[in-house]
Amino acid sequence: MQSIPGYQDICKAHEKIKPFIHETPVFYSKSINNIVGAKVFFKCENFQKVGAFKFRGASHAVLKLSEQEAKKGVTTHSSGNHAAALALAARNRKIPSYIVMPENAPEVKKKAVAGYGAEIIYCKPTLQARESALKKVQQKTGAHFIHPYDNFNVICGQGTAAIELLNEVSDLEVIMAPVGGGGLLSGTSISAKSINNKIEVIGGEPEMADDAYKSFKSGILIPSENPKTIADGLLTSLSDLTFEIIRNNVDDILLASEKSIVETMKLIWERMKIIVEPSSAVPLAAILENLNKFREKKIGIIISGGNVELGKLPF
Amino acid sequence: MQSIPGYQDICKAHEKIKPFIHETPVFYSKSINNIVGAKVFFKCENFQKVGAFKFRGASHAVLKLSEQEAKKGVTTHSSGNHAAALALAARNRKIPSYIVMPENAPEVKKKAVAGYGAEIIYCKPTLQARESALKKVQQKTGAHFIHPYDNFNVICGQGTAAIELLNEVSDLEVIMAPVGGGGLLSGTSISAKSINNKIEVIGGEPEMADDAYKSFKSGILIPSENPKTIADGLLTSLSDLTFEIIRNNVDDILLASEKSIVETMKLIWERMKIIVEPSSAVPLAAILENLNKFREKKIGIIISGGNVELGKLPF
Repeated sequence: MQSIPGYQDICKAHEKIKPFIHETPVFYSKSINNIVGAKVFFKCENFQKVGAFKFRGASHAVLKLSEQEAKKGVTTHSSGNHAAALALAARNRKIPSYIVMPENAPEVKKKAVAGYGAEIIYCKPTLQARESALKKVQQKTGAHFIHPYDNFNVICGQGTAAIELLNEVSDLEVIMAPVGGGGLLSGTSISAKSINNKIEVIGGEPEMADDAYKSFKSGILIPSENPKTIADGLLTSLSDLTFEIIRNNVDDILLASEKSIVETMKLIWERMKIIVEPSSAVPLAAILENLNKFREKKIGIIISGGNVELGKLPF
Repeated sequence: MQSIPGYQDICKAHEKIKPFIHETPVFYSKSINNIVGAKVFFKCENFQKVGAFKFRGASHAVLKLSEQEAKKGVTTHSSGNHAAALALAARNRKIPSYIVMPENAPEVKKKAVAGYGAEIIYCKPTLQARESALKKVQQKTGAHFIHPYDNFNVICGQGTAAIELLNEVSDLEVIMAPVGGGGLLSGTSISAKSINNKIEVIGGEPEMADDAYKSFKSGILIPSENPKTIADGLLTSLSDLTFEIIRNNVDDILLASEKSIVETMKLIWERMKIIVEPSSAVPLAAILENLNKFREKKIGIIISGGNVELGKLPF
């Protein structure tokens, strides 16, 4: 297993990526506070470059490459935000990027990745096909593989959002992030516990993709099989590395039903006038399903991103 | 005709309403700048209380009432943002509000107005029915009528958004606002020209509701007859007062087609991850239809609001 990032690693990552990222704003909504009976502060990574926190981790991983490594470029397989994030991070460093995408990925995602100057390699939509296409790319180009979350430097980058949030609202009692592969929750938990070890760190996960919940509760890494959730950023399972970090730093993982995720996403759109993707709604959805736990608390939530297909909304 | 507000009136209004309003953020988008070939700064009044700039004017008009006037409450006829704005402004001053609404107004608007504690009086959906219902309310309650734009104090309130925008981005060459009844454009033009008389002030109006355009070009007030546009906040026509101010302070009015309004609204949602109503998209739509006029300029746009029915999107 890779080594585990410390808070100093995340602080250094923050300094390194600052010239490239947006320091996103923190929003709140009086009417959401009234509904929850608590104070909720949203760190709006939907306003981050490429529309998602993923740009933090991808930027950091790219910036940490040596000149020697960097010039051969970077590669990953992803049809989501990490693909666009890595493509832009590579372009910023003026190095090539090779993104393996399933041929049935949404047009809008293909266009975004191509728009950031990446070379796209299409493959059949199976994990096997993706991994074998990735290997071929690596053999051919020597490009460096940047995993979307099972990567020390990526986790350091993702942890920087929590630092900014706690800089702005220092007395949070709870901090929450959605959990898929666990990169964001890992980074968030290291930062938050180091800044204030009394803060409660909680992951929000879809009921229909509950591998982190099951793993956390059982103490054994249990990947999910064919999860299906509208929160398409949270389909991935924890890795050994993110599971280890989450076990040691996270206080709880709460689940949200599909219905509640959709309703909460709509609530955020209506009350806050911001566009968030379904994954971003999961922590607030979990709060709304567990109101008693949060009554009168001061809560921070990391809004993971805002990339949705406007023609295919669930409401 | 009522007297015309001066810049000092707007500054005083600003001081008066500051404790009650949000100082909304100014956003920009690199990708929209690239599309326009200019720098565009958006004053995000979609994040204002009640989700629209209207809260500025309504708050100011309510705060300017004497104790004697105020205690009898306020009234208006509106099915839009002014209704909600007046209801909340009245609640903030702990006075009653009576809102005349057409019985076919969207449920969500009725609920919002009722939620701010207003008494709603329903009427048939004609201007005549609305005016006669309003008269009855006034006779019965003695409530003070606050017109949505043909009102000195309302215009002063609306002019405060431009002051904040120019405080934040001082070297704008162009400032734009959508124009319906003309309250926002009037206030904006007085503020902007007083702060910098070289700034170009331009109104954006739907082609399908082009009374301000026709009036401005002909020099004669020409109200529109049964306008139909998706920009439902811009269906109203100029009043003598707003026409007079616009004639004297505005440099041009540009039109936007329905198709362009919808596409531009979608562009703002996708690129900026913020929810804006169709009316808010009109100035940028007009820019996109007149690109040569704006090349390399530094432009400010007042985003009027973010109240849309998410179940009835045009895309």
